[in-house]
Amino acid sequence: MDKYFNTRHTVRHFSKKEISNDFLEKLILAACHAPTTGNMQLYSIIITKDPENKKRLAPAHFSQPAFMNAPVILTFCADLNRFVQWCVLRHAIPGYDNIQSFIAAALDTTILAQQFVTIAEKEGLGTCYLGTTTYNADKIQEALNLPSMVVPIISIAVGYPEGEETASDRLPVKAIIHNEAYKQYSEDEINDYYKEKESLSENIKYVIENGKETLAQVFTDVRYPRENNEIFSKVFIQHLKAQGFLE
Amino acid sequence: MDKYFNTRHTVRHFSKKEISNDFLEKLILAACHAPTTGNMQLYSIIITKDPENKKRLAPAHFSQPAFMNAPVILTFCADLNRFVQWCVLRHAIPGYDNIQSFIAAALDTTILAQQFVTIAEKEGLGTCYLGTTTYNADKIQEALNLPSMVVPIISIAVGYPEGEETASDRLPVKAIIHNEAYKQYSEDEINDYYKEKESLSENIKYVIENGKETLAQVFTDVRYPRENNEIFSKVFIQHLKAQGFLE
Repeated sequence: MDKYFNTRHTVRHFSKKEISNDFLEKLILAACHAPTTGNMQLYSIIITKDPENKKRLAPAHFSQPAFMNAPVILTFCADLNRFVQWCVLRHAIPGYDNIQSFIAAALDTTILAQQFVTIAEKEGLGTCYLGTTTYNADKIQEALNLPSMVVPIISIAVGYPEGEETASDRLPVKAIIHNEAYKQYSEDEINDYYKEKESLSENIKYVIENGKETLAQVFTDVRYPRENNEIFSKVFIQHLKAQGFLE
Repeated sequence: MDKYFNTRHTVRHFSKKEISNDFLEKLILAACHAPTTGNMQLYSIIITKDPENKKRLAPAHFSQPAFMNAPVILTFCADLNRFVQWCVLRHAIPGYDNIQSFIAAALDTTILAQQFVTIAEKEGLGTCYLGTTTYNADKIQEALNLPSMVVPIISIAVGYPEGEETASDRLPVKAIIHNEAYKQYSEDEINDYYKEKESLSENIKYVIENGKETLAQVFTDVRYPRENNEIFSKVFIQHLKAQGFLE
């Protein structure tokens, strides 16, 4: 097997080296051969390079370091606007202002984004998914002038890697595979599957730095607390309504 | 660039050759190095091989040919159940019964699925995404015994290709790229971008076979009509509630 897949990792530090639009287009062209629902290609990509535009987009990504030091930000959007325009011009009556159509577009978009990541990394670039996109979809919509029927799903910081970064740990593969039916986890299995992660020195340090008792508490209390999840859920549902997907 | 990416295509016809679980595990292990939100790995994969189980799952996929003749069906599920169990065992109070947590898991799941597809195809397997998964998430949940906080997102038919299949057409790459901000499409641009697709002999045939005037009408009236989109949207929203993501 191509050893790239078992060694790939996210890059959060980028050199100043720029990426030409021609090169980006070549990578995106290849990525578009990824599977897409009914070959509808329900996505668009916004390229952000201009420093002024980056500055306007930064708050939506909480000005996180990977965003700030990347030469290129790509915003992958679920896009039914283009498809609906085509339908209307061809005397076809579209019925895509609903959640299934949004989901089809969101899956197309995510598949495209991951295909882009694989191709870009194999060509020597580094990439970092910014987890902030669906939190602040409304702010991104404003900054990028997204019309109705377009929703930002994934943002990726792209650049040439600077310095060394290493792959993160992963759960044992048996933790995520179920044969023939979902098998509920026993307490022993959970302990077994999370053992390695919890024993990593960087994670032990992480728990102490955050003043917590367990690694899980860092997730529930610091990184992804209920309060934030609930606020950003409301904002996102409101955004889906505003963009025309939830009547 | 690795020429695989510009030539890959979906496979819908599979030989009888089986795929061992060891080989599948090796592919899934590699795919798990794909990016995941906060390294939480909010996904599970159900492997369906047993003919009886396949029969029970078939109606949820409308018994489509790619499902019926594949030796393996993989159901990729957004899974917060395992993570929440871990939190509870570690005295951490989870707040993941909301739409942002579901979205994080759905993106993790989709990224994993596409990474699996790339790895599997590069190892000589053929794959086909089954677009039926979110339509019949409730039936799949039943057939696979999925607990609360688990939602099926993507199903992939996997097997060794039989016969020749070719790549589908794609829109010109300029149709999906926007520089610095979303640029609304003019009528001329839409005509230009869809011209090639509409002129393909298989698409002209497809319009005639369906008794329609335009290719767009095949999508709006036959393949993805409003009525179906709306029914399956209701079912999916109900399923998200039942599985604990919409209070």
